[in-house]
Amino acid sequence: MVGMLYVNSERLWGRINDLAQVGAIDGTLGCSRLALTDEDAEGRRLVITWMQDLGMDIAIDGIGNVVGTWYGPDTDRDLPAVMTGSHIDTVKTGGRFDGNLGVLAGLEVIETIAEQGLSPVHPISVGFFTGEEGSRYAPDMLGSLVYVGGLGLESALDISGIDGTKVGEELDRIDFRGQSPCPGPIPKAFIELHIEQGPILEAENISIGAVDSVQGISWTQITIEGQSNHAGTTPMHMRHDAGWVAGEITSYVRHLVSEIGGNQVGTVGKIDLVPNLVNVVASKATLTVDLRNTDDEILKHAEQELANFCDTLSSQEKVQIHREVLARFEPVAFDKALVGEVIRVSESLDISVKQMTSGAGHDAQMFARVCPAAMIFVPSENGLSHNPAEFTSQREIEDGSNVLLQIMAKLSGLRHD
Amino acid sequence: MVGMLYVNSERLWGRINDLAQVGAIDGTLGCSRLALTDEDAEGRRLVITWMQDLGMDIAIDGIGNVVGTWYGPDTDRDLPAVMTGSHIDTVKTGGRFDGNLGVLAGLEVIETIAEQGLSPVHPISVGFFTGEEGSRYAPDMLGSLVYVGGLGLESALDISGIDGTKVGEELDRIDFRGQSPCPGPIPKAFIELHIEQGPILEAENISIGAVDSVQGISWTQITIEGQSNHAGTTPMHMRHDAGWVAGEITSYVRHLVSEIGGNQVGTVGKIDLVPNLVNVVASKATLTVDLRNTDDEILKHAEQELANFCDTLSSQEKVQIHREVLARFEPVAFDKALVGEVIRVSESLDISVKQMTSGAGHDAQMFARVCPAAMIFVPSENGLSHNPAEFTSQREIEDGSNVLLQIMAKLSGLRHD
Repeated sequence: MVGMLYVNSERLWGRINDLAQVGAIDGTLGCSRLALTDEDAEGRRLVITWMQDLGMDIAIDGIGNVVGTWYGPDTDRDLPAVMTGSHIDTVKTGGRFDGNLGVLAGLEVIETIAEQGLSPVHPISVGFFTGEEGSRYAPDMLGSLVYVGGLGLESALDISGIDGTKVGEELDRIDFRGQSPCPGPIPKAFIELHIEQGPILEAENISIGAVDSVQGISWTQITIEGQSNHAGTTPMHMRHDAGWVAGEITSYVRHLVSEIGGNQVGTVGKIDLVPNLVNVVASKATLTVDLRNTDDEILKHAEQELANFCDTLSSQEKVQIHREVLARFEPVAFDKALVGEVIRVSESLDISVKQMTSGAGHDAQMFARVCPAAMIFVPSENGLSHNPAEFTSQREIEDGSNVLLQIMAKLSGLRHD
Repeated sequence: MVGMLYVNSERLWGRINDLAQVGAIDGTLGCSRLALTDEDAEGRRLVITWMQDLGMDIAIDGIGNVVGTWYGPDTDRDLPAVMTGSHIDTVKTGGRFDGNLGVLAGLEVIETIAEQGLSPVHPISVGFFTGEEGSRYAPDMLGSLVYVGGLGLESALDISGIDGTKVGEELDRIDFRGQSPCPGPIPKAFIELHIEQGPILEAENISIGAVDSVQGISWTQITIEGQSNHAGTTPMHMRHDAGWVAGEITSYVRHLVSEIGGNQVGTVGKIDLVPNLVNVVASKATLTVDLRNTDDEILKHAEQELANFCDTLSSQEKVQIHREVLARFEPVAFDKALVGEVIRVSESLDISVKQMTSGAGHDAQMFARVCPAAMIFVPSENGLSHNPAEFTSQREIEDGSNVLLQIMAKLSGLRHD
């Protein structure tokens, strides 16, 4: 515990608001800075200016990840850095906190340490990673994936976006294709501060989430081919009703999730019927099933149960059911010691804390492949995110940033009298 | 029984095919003659030519219904006519049999009688009624509704269509706004030959349906307002999932129908989710429920049970559920004696027959308000209708038309030695 060292939340709040002016969505709190657009470039340049003001060394790698590193007077430049960070790209109609908070809180940690004339043993790095949202270029978490060597640079540069552009060409266009190598230097540890993007902390009136894992994700698209028929003239036993089958699967997913319990979640968010008319039995239905669990074995069990249910329905209603995997990510476990540290530090600061899982993906999960990693969550008002109305109060951000500060201080071996 | 009198099915088949050339959908058996379009007008003129060739008197009323009346040498012109007929308008991508069969079989009945030099006591009329399909102007069965006085002529002329046109203006444009009065003369009886538009006769290998009733129809649109949330970060117990509720209702409708049994049918043919994305809990869902029964009390019971289920779901998932009646028609019972006649005549012709209900609406149900009415169904291949692939064989049409001929002959008091 580094006593009496606290972030300046006013300064941090100011930077969050300044960055939110770039790509601001008029009349809202929100931002639109899709990865590698002009707005993203302008945001990048602003954050780099702030890094330079703090005397940080700037490294830009081949996929456009920007890592600023700060050395105190007594820092050993040969030691691996303690890294924090996140992303500054947004979804098309995003908020000002998602990602940006983690990057700017990192800068605030450094400024707090620097203005006290203190010095860490390890360098401290703050990174912002290219294309975390995946809204313009898939996959999401692209920059951090390339940073840790999970995807080759050439393959990443060749990715085409929703607008037909290529990652490499857009990096060149905005002048953010750097010379630093990919994969990048492995940090001593990686810790990311992020908004929860869910309702749990707010609902339980808790200030800090000590994130111990990221849920595994299974997305399945189910296509049902039945037979179009007149809703009035076709007896029930002669129907092959794709719409009814879609309804049964939607109902079953909730039942399955409830049976499995624990942190299992399941969602049917998309249903499309053909011809989608009041008086016609649907000939075709397409729906998606989103299943998530922190335990991959349970997630596989859920997938198998869903498949079995589809098979049963298929023979019962005499329809064809086709399942297609749209996405599949294994769960990620964060470093136990680091998660314990988040809890310990929060408690010592008298800030309420809860160990929890992340339902969404984050850059920190990529770093979990190569070094100890963990995350700190702060509450999201009404659980909203990916929405201009996304909001976390200055006080909540202050708490989260102070927890981040203490952990960075400890990991970097900050000397403090 | 008028012995040895049979229709000429080759001639009837020829007229069906000739009329199908008007508004033909290239490369299919189908037709597109929406009510009061140029194609409808051309079809109307062709059928009127055939009526005139048979020496029929043509009456066109204010809503464009065309009724041709035939008198034999010994017919008493003061007696009410025995009427048959149907419609020649089609849905946008319709078949060649729906409606057209009933009109052209009526002409064939007259031609068969006339060429034998026979004479009925009562006049025989064949009508085709404006806008039965309801595809361009709602409600469906518009012309026959106005004919029997169920809707005032001025109101009917003022109806706006899906393309913004008005019935009265389009009638003027195609020159089919006639002088005959609405409501029209009440016939002695009305009997309509129609394709089944369902799979029952084919499945049971039966040639004739003696239609004793038309199902009551209840269409409800259900709108569910829940809350949009992240599919990964929102615990199940904190969801207000409009998509799940839509699935439950879809599943429940089948369950309800099965519990009620009998001829109850129920269909969810339309489901729309918002925002309809794989990883977002739906904030809103709209679905339709089509319920039909020949017994209005049971239909009301089904509607009430559905409403109760929605109320239960609404409190369980904490979503708003709004129900709106899109359409509601009471069941129609046809004349028992006339239905019995269809059965008796079929059996005496050695044609298999089954008493059954109609799941779809027909012009005959409007005439049931003012005179004895019934219908004769012939099989639909694969139960298909409102589809260019709609098909009924020449042999099946011949059987149906011979049943129609015998009944018309008997009702009109045909003298035959």
